[in-house]
Amino acid sequence: MVMTPTTPGQALPNNQSLSPYGPARATITGNPLTPEEVKLMDAYWRACCYLIVGMIYLKDNPLLREPLHIDQIKKRLLGHWGSSPGQSFIWTHLNRVIKKYDLDMIYLSGPGHGAPGVIAPVYLDGSYSEVYPEKSEDARGLKAFFKQFSFPGGIGSHCTPETPGSIHEGGELGYSVSHAYGTVFDNPNLISVVVVGDGESETGPLATSWHSNKFLNPITDGAVLPILHLNGYKINNPTILSRISHADLAALFQGYGYEPLFVEGSDPETMHQALAATLDYAIEKIKTYQAEARSTGVAKLYRYPMIIFRTPKGWTGPAEIDGKKFEGFWRSHQVPMADVVKNPAHLQLLEDWMKSYKPEELFDENGTLIPELKALAPKGEKRMGSNPHTNGGRICKDLRMPDFREYGIPVEKPGTFEAPNTQPLGVFLRDVMARNMTNFRVFGPDENTSNKLNDIYAVSKKTWLAEYLPEDADGGELATNGRVMEMLSEHTLEGWLEAYLLTGRHGFFATYESFVHVIDSMFNQHAKWIQKAAELPWRAPVPSLNLLITSTVWRQDHNGFTHQDPGFLDIVTNKDPEVVRIYMPPDVNSLLSCADHCLQSKNYVNVIVCDKQMHLQYMDMDAAIVHCTKGIGIWDWASNDQGYEPDVVLVGCGDIPTQEALAANVMLREAFPDLKIRFLNVVDLLKLQPDTEHPHGLSDRDFDSLFTLDKPIIFNFHGYPWLIHKLAYRRHNHVNLHVRGYKEKGNINTPLELAIENEVDRFSIAIDVINRVPKLTVAGAHAKEKFRNQQIAAANYAFEHGIDPPEIVNWRWPL
Amino acid sequence: MVMTPTTPGQALPNNQSLSPYGPARATITGNPLTPEEVKLMDAYWRACCYLIVGMIYLKDNPLLREPLHIDQIKKRLLGHWGSSPGQSFIWTHLNRVIKKYDLDMIYLSGPGHGAPGVIAPVYLDGSYSEVYPEKSEDARGLKAFFKQFSFPGGIGSHCTPETPGSIHEGGELGYSVSHAYGTVFDNPNLISVVVVGDGESETGPLATSWHSNKFLNPITDGAVLPILHLNGYKINNPTILSRISHADLAALFQGYGYEPLFVEGSDPETMHQALAATLDYAIEKIKTYQAEARSTGVAKLYRYPMIIFRTPKGWTGPAEIDGKKFEGFWRSHQVPMADVVKNPAHLQLLEDWMKSYKPEELFDENGTLIPELKALAPKGEKRMGSNPHTNGGRICKDLRMPDFREYGIPVEKPGTFEAPNTQPLGVFLRDVMARNMTNFRVFGPDENTSNKLNDIYAVSKKTWLAEYLPEDADGGELATNGRVMEMLSEHTLEGWLEAYLLTGRHGFFATYESFVHVIDSMFNQHAKWIQKAAELPWRAPVPSLNLLITSTVWRQDHNGFTHQDPGFLDIVTNKDPEVVRIYMPPDVNSLLSCADHCLQSKNYVNVIVCDKQMHLQYMDMDAAIVHCTKGIGIWDWASNDQGYEPDVVLVGCGDIPTQEALAANVMLREAFPDLKIRFLNVVDLLKLQPDTEHPHGLSDRDFDSLFTLDKPIIFNFHGYPWLIHKLAYRRHNHVNLHVRGYKEKGNINTPLELAIENEVDRFSIAIDVINRVPKLTVAGAHAKEKFRNQQIAAANYAFEHGIDPPEIVNWRWPL
Repeated sequence: MVMTPTTPGQALPNNQSLSPYGPARATITGNPLTPEEVKLMDAYWRACCYLIVGMIYLKDNPLLREPLHIDQIKKRLLGHWGSSPGQSFIWTHLNRVIKKYDLDMIYLSGPGHGAPGVIAPVYLDGSYSEVYPEKSEDARGLKAFFKQFSFPGGIGSHCTPETPGSIHEGGELGYSVSHAYGTVFDNPNLISVVVVGDGESETGPLATSWHSNKFLNPITDGAVLPILHLNGYKINNPTILSRISHADLAALFQGYGYEPLFVEGSDPETMHQALAATLDYAIEKIKTYQAEARSTGVAKLYRYPMIIFRTPKGWTGPAEIDGKKFEGFWRSHQVPMADVVKNPAHLQLLEDWMKSYKPEELFDENGTLIPELKALAPKGEKRMGSNPHTNGGRICKDLRMPDFREYGIPVEKPGTFEAPNTQPLGVFLRDVMARNMTNFRVFGPDENTSNKLNDIYAVSKKTWLAEYLPEDADGGELATNGRVMEMLSEHTLEGWLEAYLLTGRHGFFATYESFVHVIDSMFNQHAKWIQKAAELPWRAPVPSLNLLITSTVWRQDHNGFTHQDPGFLDIVTNKDPEVVRIYMPPDVNSLLSCADHCLQSKNYVNVIVCDKQMHLQYMDMDAAIVHCTKGIGIWDWASNDQGYEPDVVLVGCGDIPTQEALAANVMLREAFPDLKIRFLNVVDLLKLQPDTEHPHGLSDRDFDSLFTLDKPIIFNFHGYPWLIHKLAYRRHNHVNLHVRGYKEKGNINTPLELAIENEVDRFSIAIDVINRVPKLTVAGAHAKEKFRNQQIAAANYAFEHGIDPPEIVNWRWPL
Repeated sequence: MVMTPTTPGQALPNNQSLSPYGPARATITGNPLTPEEVKLMDAYWRACCYLIVGMIYLKDNPLLREPLHIDQIKKRLLGHWGSSPGQSFIWTHLNRVIKKYDLDMIYLSGPGHGAPGVIAPVYLDGSYSEVYPEKSEDARGLKAFFKQFSFPGGIGSHCTPETPGSIHEGGELGYSVSHAYGTVFDNPNLISVVVVGDGESETGPLATSWHSNKFLNPITDGAVLPILHLNGYKINNPTILSRISHADLAALFQGYGYEPLFVEGSDPETMHQALAATLDYAIEKIKTYQAEARSTGVAKLYRYPMIIFRTPKGWTGPAEIDGKKFEGFWRSHQVPMADVVKNPAHLQLLEDWMKSYKPEELFDENGTLIPELKALAPKGEKRMGSNPHTNGGRICKDLRMPDFREYGIPVEKPGTFEAPNTQPLGVFLRDVMARNMTNFRVFGPDENTSNKLNDIYAVSKKTWLAEYLPEDADGGELATNGRVMEMLSEHTLEGWLEAYLLTGRHGFFATYESFVHVIDSMFNQHAKWIQKAAELPWRAPVPSLNLLITSTVWRQDHNGFTHQDPGFLDIVTNKDPEVVRIYMPPDVNSLLSCADHCLQSKNYVNVIVCDKQMHLQYMDMDAAIVHCTKGIGIWDWASNDQGYEPDVVLVGCGDIPTQEALAANVMLREAFPDLKIRFLNVVDLLKLQPDTEHPHGLSDRDFDSLFTLDKPIIFNFHGYPWLIHKLAYRRHNHVNLHVRGYKEKGNINTPLELAIENEVDRFSIAIDVINRVPKLTVAGAHAKEKFRNQQIAAANYAFEHGIDPPEIVNWRWPL
């Protein structure tokens, strides 16, 4: 075998043609396979293709041992043929290299709609039947296997959680490469092959995720082998990458830092040789780089290989259907012929097509794959459908946790001094990191220092494999073996983290509140994955996705309107209550308590909202633990209704809204000494939902005892105010619930101005109370006027000086 | 002048160094400027730099004619120095080429936080003072100009709508390149220069948007000149692109299809010559390509130039502060010295720094830029701060609309036949397109055919400048002069469309419901831009962003759980009521009426939710117009409460929920002939909000007259049910409002199974009514049991056959 690494894109015999047809053209040439190997591998691939078509069409007669009849066809035909045969071709070849090199390898399917191309080989190697015994390796099991695909009550046409060996569904496109990298961090012996769709490649998240290689340590991490599947077409259009020149395509991947290796063609025999030669080359390159780095101890940015695999879309399908080009065109994207039940010619074409794979040569009389073919797959956990990394909960080690109580700060009297809420969390995370240096990472888009989490760097710096300059030594905190992942792409970070968790490790992601919307859709998909995975008894729970939302709206007065959006919570509360949790700790100790709880949980998405700036401190550690455990509670020190029914319930939820509600509390009690105020703070937001809706929800009885049945509630909230109504609309006292929050009013402001514009400031809250408490309607007129004047004076001061008045900035709880 | 186009990345004298320092190294060499020109341009740049520093620090003493005193420093220092000087350097040079080549040119600032680098030259050329006369071109105006920057009540530190010449704020990163392309579509004489931050370049949306060149027609579109500003650092980290080799960087942009031109260094004199030579080369290349295409009539994909501009971050700032490297490092990202008020040494450093620009040579005794420098800028609308394209409403031409009524379908009896809701819209859009072939485009991610809008292609095909293969003629619908924009990147499409609208043109975007979350954050930012721009009297209203959400949740039973998410509306309803509109037309004619209205509106984001499949038709065109104009109303034909107070109010909102509620209606009336049902349909979702909250909101009186004060309301909704409570929680009869909608329950289902799982199906609704109407509590027991049995039978049928029972599929309104 001759290995010929060449200038990318220039070694191809036919440099100009973008056709996927013909004998193989490849960067790496050679014939590593014996004729017998080619024959067997091709048969294995045919078996896959046969299963793919069977899944899409058949509910009976799985081996076509009787003439195909319309009663054996599913009533509603669903599924995607297009990329499936190419994916099975790749899978067949990966089986070979796993055995040849004794690899620990998993497979991620970027074009998730090509799931049949994955499910077929997972069935053939026995992994499927082990998980789902009723889909046994015989005719009876095959029938059930076919029928369930894209069938109500069955499995979907993506690599859903139900698919053994999958950690990447691919229902939404764009995340396959970042997921692949996430799997190999801290898994030095793992090679993750990611088949990237050329349609998917047009998405933004995918386009930037190629740069993940700059964050891969060749000593402590494994490797990713991307295979760009140039299938040529999307649903109805050609793909961009399939329609640019070889030179540009090669340059693009060189630019991304890879060594691109082309394998192009449609002729099976030469394609088998070409892909085998290319995979051998790629695996040996990866092993050479890893060996060098691991023997020298020098971690550098290697130019890893990637494969550009151009084959016809719908490869081996009918060339034409009704005189229209089918194979190698966008028409082969989905179900080739939707009308086989009504069109006898199409039914015949289907039967001929399936029989072209010669099932009688592939399966024995029981409908079991013949032993010579079965032998091609690896055994046990080496099978990609059974690799333990793809069921990460099974191999997950619990985090070794320091005692979070030791990171708290003393609080002798509530509300009397300020501290930066996130800074001690950074110290805590530092020590979590120190105890878990192979299975815990922290993620953030260039903002961990800005978010005051920088103490982490004392234990582990930021991963950086790209060029290092002398000045980086001056506070750059970069290291090739860093474990803090910082890239200015929330998409890539989220993708890395999701896969890191799904393969059984732990993580923490901190990001700016307004820009967490960038990953709304990724959050949705991950929450859906967890929900479904949790329903499968064979999938073990995985560590939760922990998201710290900081640099929040109320301290984005200076960055302006674009940086003000607390609406991520609205997205989160749409997801399954079994999966989502939201915490709004107002101070250092409550944040630590929440973070400790979240880090040790499984199968959730935990969202913690806490600003990074200086804030008043309310609870000592014991009080914080009690309060966070309850999730919601009366702050006695801020209430004067002990022994009475209160006149009003004041609620703070979030740091700034709590502070402003407390200040209003003081103003009111000074003005109206007889006014009975109950002060509540909410940490666990979903306590507000009924217990019938969310596992954390309060019973109506508990809710009523806190919020009363008939007293006005002034609820000062961190986010959009109507979210509270969405959660609490069923509560008995809902009619008296008045929520203040961010109402999309902002600009370049001082913090107080921003609060005033959105009516969450102390003056507005105090006036609100006067308006809502019947006994103050008349008696409160004077105070209202006074508060209004104070508000105007404060706003005028801010406008003139560009900062808030000292009595606002320095306000402390005085009672 | 010698122009030397070279193999990218190989012509640099110092191929290895990634340092931004030293004399200019450039791909294009030459000295096109006279020494006098260099001197003047450098002085202009110094004036910009002076203004930048002044904006960040000063509220008084703007010309430093007296010693700098701490009272003249702003109390709170905000703003970003890092990329500002480099951006002003580029702007100064663009002024030169605008004059030299008489260009129509605008500027987009990717690193939006470098706004001072834009605002400074906009002030210097007089554009700023024309819009804001109080910021006049003299010492008094300069003082006001300085003070307002990042100051409460003033302007932000991004290129906000308040910035003349800006259509791209850059508050959220990633959209500069797609915005730039959006401006030049159908603007053949426009060149949009987009300065791309190297931090921003790490985002996904930016990384894929470079491929926009494959959609640019050299005859009918203008050109984009991207300038990648290799500033080297983000907030705290180096950028990836500044830390890969020249060869890789050049390859990356060659791969993206550009001709990369390096300009690197820090020495002002040689940098002036290098950038001038490079810009001359780039402009001439663009003009050459355009001239060739326009003279031959052959539109092809040209390899347009792009510039890689590597300069020190914080260029010309202090080299060190307190012994720490400052210029050329991440420390220069934001405010260089935050403590000048407290630190006399820093105050002195600031004064020395500002004086290093020699303001006394730049401004006359009045504080006005001296005439020799003023003469460097273009005049009138050629100034980038005054270019009419950046205030697109001013030059916007109204759409020439066909009569939408002619595209409707006859509906003689409601609910008796089905039609594909979106198909006639495609015909309508075809004719809108035909009448507006230079200022209207349709956008969609590879899904317009799937979404049944493909009639458009009869008038205008899909834009495609990449390779064209013979088979594309067979239904590919591709054309170099296509006006339908299809790329598998919702980010890029949304970016193109936003900029197309902001420059005064019209558009329509259709996308899958679940994946519209991909652009949640872009929607947020655009809505914020419109809201702020509408407050500025000098900005004219721009056409609305029209978003058709289709392939909706209730018909994603087959694609499965990942494709089910109707939560975009939750995001939309968080934005300013003056900006957002939501329409839920249930049939063909109502969809046409809504679309016609939306296309002619200004300054909104209109979201239309309507599925693409076959649905029952309810309204003839006259009825549809009346109903859509009211936005909500009683369907008399489906109600039997005429002359009575109803026993129950049934509401349908959205296609499938309306159908199911109607079917329940029939079941109930058959079971209980005396039951009085009022049937409402909601098209304009925001009618549910109070009129005090949203301009479309119903008054309480109108709401009460429709929904009654005390009767049970069963509201069958398209989206997440709690959204309705969020909108209607203040209504009098809210306590009787029971909403059904998507509750995150889905898998591979039939449509009916999916409806049943989420309780929006006819059986669940009918049972709901029985449970809620007091007089049916006892009388309804039998019917309830019957409905439950019918539901079970239908579900069993679906499970067995994989399709819904015929009596469900073929259900028609029978009364």
